[in-house]
Amino acid sequence: MEGRLKIGICQMTVTNQKEVNIARAREMIEEATAAGSRIVILPEMFNCPYSTNAFPEFAEQYPTGETIRMLKKTAKEKEIYLVGGSIPEKEGEQVFNTSFIFNPLGEMIGKHRKIHLFDVDLPSGLSFRESKTLSPGDQATVVNTPLASLGVAICYDIRFPELSRLMTLKGAQILIFPAAFNMTTGPAHWEMLFKTRAVDNQVFTVGASSARNYNAPYVSYGNSMVVDPWGNITARADEQERIIYAEIDLEYIAKIRRELPLLEHRRVDLY
Amino acid sequence: MEGRLKIGICQMTVTNQKEVNIARAREMIEEATAAGSRIVILPEMFNCPYSTNAFPEFAEQYPTGETIRMLKKTAKEKEIYLVGGSIPEKEGEQVFNTSFIFNPLGEMIGKHRKIHLFDVDLPSGLSFRESKTLSPGDQATVVNTPLASLGVAICYDIRFPELSRLMTLKGAQILIFPAAFNMTTGPAHWEMLFKTRAVDNQVFTVGASSARNYNAPYVSYGNSMVVDPWGNITARADEQERIIYAEIDLEYIAKIRRELPLLEHRRVDLY
Repeated sequence: MEGRLKIGICQMTVTNQKEVNIARAREMIEEATAAGSRIVILPEMFNCPYSTNAFPEFAEQYPTGETIRMLKKTAKEKEIYLVGGSIPEKEGEQVFNTSFIFNPLGEMIGKHRKIHLFDVDLPSGLSFRESKTLSPGDQATVVNTPLASLGVAICYDIRFPELSRLMTLKGAQILIFPAAFNMTTGPAHWEMLFKTRAVDNQVFTVGASSARNYNAPYVSYGNSMVVDPWGNITARADEQERIIYAEIDLEYIAKIRRELPLLEHRRVDLY
Repeated sequence: MEGRLKIGICQMTVTNQKEVNIARAREMIEEATAAGSRIVILPEMFNCPYSTNAFPEFAEQYPTGETIRMLKKTAKEKEIYLVGGSIPEKEGEQVFNTSFIFNPLGEMIGKHRKIHLFDVDLPSGLSFRESKTLSPGDQATVVNTPLASLGVAICYDIRFPELSRLMTLKGAQILIFPAAFNMTTGPAHWEMLFKTRAVDNQVFTVGASSARNYNAPYVSYGNSMVVDPWGNITARADEQERIIYAEIDLEYIAKIRRELPLLEHRRVDLY
């Protein structure tokens, strides 16, 4: 484990053309790498419009899908760790919302299938039923790398404090959430969730959103951010397409945990 | 269970004289009752300076202690539910940080002994060791009343998302935390914790702080607040001695849980 670690979060605009999305993701990964990022992170459903009908249509199988091949190839060429946001993944008759994670050798070192599906009827009138076309994953994902131990989950998964706690107890130092909150839940809850998960677990949290696109069927909030274990926002995007960077000092985790030993103070006899 | 419910939170100044504190608490409870509050809430260690040496000295036994008798008597006279902040409670050789809860008949219907003791060395230089003189409680506290089901825990207890979840699963609709965050943790974390516990659990949260007193050995943050299940702050004090009021609509809990069914979506097979 090293000390300072530069990461890049690509808040890309997702269109309804898969090829355009793949090309744009690759460009942004290249830019983030050129700027010195050793871990690069893409948003949720970066190759696909966020709509239940689109998911099966845009879905790919591992390892042959074209998006998956781009991720593998780019991670290897650029010698980076790549958290490939998420894409619709087909396996048999099922489709998952899946994040594929690659190492600098181009090896797939982990994948997370979104555990909690987003089935809601928001006060703004927005309804969404991921379960209409998606199946849920069934495990927490923590990937150990020589740079850091990464917890990876997707968007609505952050709503459940149990999962962030579980990833932390499995050793995750950075909790990474490719995500696409919307214009109702984003302004209301996005920031507090990333801050409080970081503070409760004394880890870094990363929210990697797609850029806000008013032409899309689902308008995502943007505001990709990185929060440190004390709850400070150390990098934050606005709503536009851009890359944000953070320098992560993993030793800060140990310092905070020494000062305020929350994890030691848990009463596991009671809950 | 009824619909709208007025509660009053007494952000009182705590002095080093027990009699003054008891008298002041009684005055504030009377004022809150006169203003229509049906549940009145006091802050943590409202009869006692927040210092480990003071705890044993100010401690009282149930039911004979003078603070406890005042709470019982006032709840009955004013016909209110009274969450008696907390006081040092002696039982045998042990001292606890305990919240006594009374109904309008003056009956003690619940008590919470702080589960998580505040033993920290903060970056500001502030060190505190509650465990030097206090013993921890060993259960979550939910008190059912005809007005609402109240979860009661104390200050540092809010740091642990597991406890708020447990109280919620036991049916609590309002999570009440008598508390005394300080000038390091208060500005950094107080608001986000009350907001996120409310949003994660889709309940109301109440933080009842003592007023900021720069003459005290431990300077509390103040900022008593009430947060609704969508994360909106519906009442908030500044740092001064004052009472804040909130009108709580318990039906809002059901509405939010219908729209965003977080509790149903928990994956209890995984955590």
